[in-house]
Amino acid sequence: MVRMRRIAFEELRERVKRVLVGLGLPAERAALGARLTAETDRDGVKTHGIARLPRFAAQVRAGLIVPDAAPECVVSFGAIERWTGHSGPGNIAAHAAMARAMELAKEHGIGCVALGDTSHWMRAGSYGWMAAEAGYAAMCWSNTLPNLPPWGASTPALGNNPLVVAVPRFGEGASEPVVLDIAMSQFSYGSLNSYAQRGAALPVPGGYDEQGTLTTDAAAIERSQRALPIGFWKGSGLSFVLDVLGAMLSGGKATHQFSSSALEEVGQSQVFLAIAPTAVGAVEQMRAVVDGAINAVHQATPIEAGKPARYPGEGALRVREENMRLGVAVEDAAWNGFVKLEEEIQGVRSSE
Amino acid sequence: MVRMRRIAFEELRERVKRVLVGLGLPAERAALGARLTAETDRDGVKTHGIARLPRFAAQVRAGLIVPDAAPECVVSFGAIERWTGHSGPGNIAAHAAMARAMELAKEHGIGCVALGDTSHWMRAGSYGWMAAEAGYAAMCWSNTLPNLPPWGASTPALGNNPLVVAVPRFGEGASEPVVLDIAMSQFSYGSLNSYAQRGAALPVPGGYDEQGTLTTDAAAIERSQRALPIGFWKGSGLSFVLDVLGAMLSGGKATHQFSSSALEEVGQSQVFLAIAPTAVGAVEQMRAVVDGAINAVHQATPIEAGKPARYPGEGALRVREENMRLGVAVEDAAWNGFVKLEEEIQGVRSSE
Repeated sequence: MVRMRRIAFEELRERVKRVLVGLGLPAERAALGARLTAETDRDGVKTHGIARLPRFAAQVRAGLIVPDAAPECVVSFGAIERWTGHSGPGNIAAHAAMARAMELAKEHGIGCVALGDTSHWMRAGSYGWMAAEAGYAAMCWSNTLPNLPPWGASTPALGNNPLVVAVPRFGEGASEPVVLDIAMSQFSYGSLNSYAQRGAALPVPGGYDEQGTLTTDAAAIERSQRALPIGFWKGSGLSFVLDVLGAMLSGGKATHQFSSSALEEVGQSQVFLAIAPTAVGAVEQMRAVVDGAINAVHQATPIEAGKPARYPGEGALRVREENMRLGVAVEDAAWNGFVKLEEEIQGVRSSE
Repeated sequence: MVRMRRIAFEELRERVKRVLVGLGLPAERAALGARLTAETDRDGVKTHGIARLPRFAAQVRAGLIVPDAAPECVVSFGAIERWTGHSGPGNIAAHAAMARAMELAKEHGIGCVALGDTSHWMRAGSYGWMAAEAGYAAMCWSNTLPNLPPWGASTPALGNNPLVVAVPRFGEGASEPVVLDIAMSQFSYGSLNSYAQRGAALPVPGGYDEQGTLTTDAAAIERSQRALPIGFWKGSGLSFVLDVLGAMLSGGKATHQFSSSALEEVGQSQVFLAIAPTAVGAVEQMRAVVDGAINAVHQATPIEAGKPARYPGEGALRVREENMRLGVAVEDAAWNGFVKLEEEIQGVRSSE
């Protein structure tokens, strides 16, 4: 059984900030990084909040991430820019890139920032929420190290490249935008491991066993390392195009240029697109479209009585409300890893 | 067994052009529409070439498509424009929209055209090939009538909204770009019907039977009308965001505003994005990225010995070469429908 505890959001944010300062981030950027991390746990994306900090710390200590590096624009042409992350913290750089894409969209109706030489951006959805809450539509994606076999092959040559599409809402629903955040594999290896440890079957097939048969047995997929791309050949193709387009535009690594070491997974390529919908249409028309589409999904006959289908992002909003009210739910394993990191940093400080 | 014949590409194009002129398209636009249609069969996308013309003709005759209407820009702001198709032929309007997005990308690095009040664009991939062959990266999508249940529901509230991502190549591979063309359902109803008629099992699960169990039985999915979105909840979410974003930007219909009648499926919303990669980087770097990524996919261990995994678009190139050499392969059913249309138009002409 997974044990949990709850931590007040402000305490979580403050303690993450101290850790990031301890790792060498300048105070203001540490505050931003801490907010993004705490918001990730607050929204229930437990795999990409404080649970990610030990690996981030290891990459900083190994010299693979430069904690005080700031992202910078290196090429600008109209509504598109190429940026470098200078090997800095990935979520800080991604936030800057989306902020700049939004500025470009304000000026040109649409804006694009391609960011290379960065590091893991933690929760992909962060940059979608950010844009949509400010009234912009957005699309962004990152590549990853090879962790997914292309359709027709049994060895990894693609990444599970997360993709985000965010759509703002206007009027009453403005604070509840539409945010889709999906990776190209049906389940992450973290999620497969969690099912395997509980001995639970996956809700749908998640990959192939060592005999090449589609299976809901997570442990078998861990052994075969043949996770399933979403939609089989379709997710395989989508992963490929996102990778090459990102690396072309950003000048960063493509998936095939990464080693298979998770510690060495730095140098990602990412693309941030923002659109100002109100540049081409009236707010009332846009409000009617989204509200009508949400209503249609809610009205579809549910498979389980009383459990209507949801729009992308709807689930996160419910978790967020609960976590703000009761304290942010964190799993003991992630929390213990975080406390250990706090102690290590405290130890380094004391000995200085 | 499906019976086939081969028709020389030029003959096919010429005969389709005569049909389109007969339906009321001005000569130049009929020539463009005929080229796009013949190229679709040439590339092996049999469901969206001449096989679609009888329905197109029925929509023209029902007054739902205005054959001589031309698309027009209605709002322009920097690098983004809103266009209306004025209920004209969808492939002509889509071609104009992508051409304009490419012009905008040439000027601003990135360009976007949102097209509303249009009709079926036939093969989605056409506009990706067009952009990539001219050196642009592109993304485009269309919404459709409701034909897919959202995840968690059993009645259709989403479309199977095709999505295209195209990436140009430079140097030797320039004529063989990367073009992904995927719908949000794992299989189209056309494809399900084809499996059902042959009594063949789907290669992977394609939906649910009437008991709500995941199945490879195409006939059972036809009965339940519960086709599977790619990646289950992921494709369901992706379909939703593409629909609302398209309808917001274009001012056209959202999926929930269509009836369930295929004949009445007009008024689609579509988005065309083009990017000029060379605005931000050097051709040599871009060439290395794509060639390296293609090589990595080809080098992955194939599941079937001697059958390496392919990159998106690679299969179409092989079919294209064969169809240009031997004549375009068309299925008898599609061909007979086309010949019937020719005769009807000839009949109308003779009686005039």
